[in-house]
Amino acid sequence: PQYRAIREKLKDFKELVETPQLAAEVTIQPIDELGVDAAIIFSDILVIPEAMGLTYEMQEKRGPWFPKTIKNQSDIDQLLDVATAADRLHYVYEAVKVTKAALHGRVPLIGFAGAPWTIFAYMVEGGGSKTFSAAKSRLYTDPEASHRLLQKITDVTIAYLKNKIAAGCDLIQIFDSWAGILSPMQYAVFSAPYIDQICKALPVETPKTIFAKGAWFALESFADMECQTIGLDWSTSADFARQKIGKKKTLQGNLDPCALYADLPSVRKATTDMLSQFAGAPHIANLGHGVYPDTPLAQIKCFVETVQEFSQQSSQF
Amino acid sequence: PQYRAIREKLKDFKELVETPQLAAEVTIQPIDELGVDAAIIFSDILVIPEAMGLTYEMQEKRGPWFPKTIKNQSDIDQLLDVATAADRLHYVYEAVKVTKAALHGRVPLIGFAGAPWTIFAYMVEGGGSKTFSAAKSRLYTDPEASHRLLQKITDVTIAYLKNKIAAGCDLIQIFDSWAGILSPMQYAVFSAPYIDQICKALPVETPKTIFAKGAWFALESFADMECQTIGLDWSTSADFARQKIGKKKTLQGNLDPCALYADLPSVRKATTDMLSQFAGAPHIANLGHGVYPDTPLAQIKCFVETVQEFSQQSSQF
Repeated sequence: PQYRAIREKLKDFKELVETPQLAAEVTIQPIDELGVDAAIIFSDILVIPEAMGLTYEMQEKRGPWFPKTIKNQSDIDQLLDVATAADRLHYVYEAVKVTKAALHGRVPLIGFAGAPWTIFAYMVEGGGSKTFSAAKSRLYTDPEASHRLLQKITDVTIAYLKNKIAAGCDLIQIFDSWAGILSPMQYAVFSAPYIDQICKALPVETPKTIFAKGAWFALESFADMECQTIGLDWSTSADFARQKIGKKKTLQGNLDPCALYADLPSVRKATTDMLSQFAGAPHIANLGHGVYPDTPLAQIKCFVETVQEFSQQSSQF
Repeated sequence: PQYRAIREKLKDFKELVETPQLAAEVTIQPIDELGVDAAIIFSDILVIPEAMGLTYEMQEKRGPWFPKTIKNQSDIDQLLDVATAADRLHYVYEAVKVTKAALHGRVPLIGFAGAPWTIFAYMVEGGGSKTFSAAKSRLYTDPEASHRLLQKITDVTIAYLKNKIAAGCDLIQIFDSWAGILSPMQYAVFSAPYIDQICKALPVETPKTIFAKGAWFALESFADMECQTIGLDWSTSADFARQKIGKKKTLQGNLDPCALYADLPSVRKATTDMLSQFAGAPHIANLGHGVYPDTPLAQIKCFVETVQEFSQQSSQF
């Protein structure tokens, strides 16, 4: 409700993303209101294509929409260079600085970016899609140009994340939201190598988290990347992930966001069941994807409290 | 193109589904035009909710939409009884009879239905959705009523499929299109048991195929069901599936439909690679999901020819 109160005063979602003082304010809200253990800077993964020269609109209910998309090599050539694109995102770095100062060290601040494949998917498809068949088919019909675009996105993303870390982000999360629509072979060629590049290029002392939604088939490939944490969606059990990833990484996740529509005793049980599955190895409790906008506040608080109680009990052993 | 020529003369998609002579005509088209080894009756999984009393509209580009959805127990009570609902689907049985006669035994005829969870998802959500959070959350907030609705759908589906088999279908496929959005635990409680019921209730001599899109986590549970074939989407490798399912079942799939946008040599290579993965155990070659409407005809033909050549070579050993 606090978020919506601010959002309703603005002309659109992008005004919130692009106004550092407001972005900082909504970033800190859940720390005060829910007592969560980390803040994640309020922003959007689509600031990257926008900075590269492809502007987007965030349409109510329909989601993001790009009036211009990438159709050929000439469109790729017209994208702005890395330094210019990274500079155009100054409003994000400013939001990080303002947030960091306002947090007074209470909790760590997470910075994030989309994985290059996910950004590519939007830049080619032009918006959300059930199949992303235009973007996926480009990988089959023009693999060379696809790699050139993915590399450009990767280069801008690295510069962007370095600036975010310099501005104060304590850890970095990479969201591969459309990982799950690729085949395992396509993922290994067109997504994983670019995430690997990003992890390697960022400061070694900054912890990194990879969350590739639906990419259960790629978990093994993340095990060897220079990251500390692998995020899991709710379709992937802790046992399956441990079997594929081993004990080298922290796992993050993975309560089904829909479980937070149930009554409070059910929320408590579902949360405890989830935590028990991950017990015995490093785990960051989280939902298996973003919280849905109409989730009742009491249920979210119940989730957070259950996690904190479980965590206190576990640490007594 | 042949399909579109017929489709364009009609007022809507449902006229085609509900007119036996036309449904038979478009069912047989791919046999003549592509030379595929089986026909699948032209219909829609949403004829089941319609027969139960929830009418739907098929909106261009937006997909299916239900003006009335299931909100509570009273809505469930108002659904038509099994015998009435199954009788209302006489136009499908008629289409099967007409098709069967026109095929003259050239190829087997496949009948199909949606899995109860997928039908439930549409009846509660009211249309397509990225998250189906309304339908999923109902499983959490009212599991008892959810089971009652799932059982009603299951009963109608069994009666419907028995009638389709009596009308001439040689095998049955169950499509769980929205399997992949459930958690493994929800799937085990709210989807798999109803598919199991359907398999057990149908004649033992009719082969059955289960295709649960995105439900890689449920493959083990299908291994013990009374079915012969498990369909796989393109995210699931043959090796992974064999490991989970064993050698008791035939596997079906799973070329990424987007691979058919590439040039012909690439289509041939992708198809051969896929076939090689499945070689050495019973396999029905197929795409990993439905063909996309704008797929070039030459590429589809190339897929079919490559499968047939591979099959002839393999059978020489």
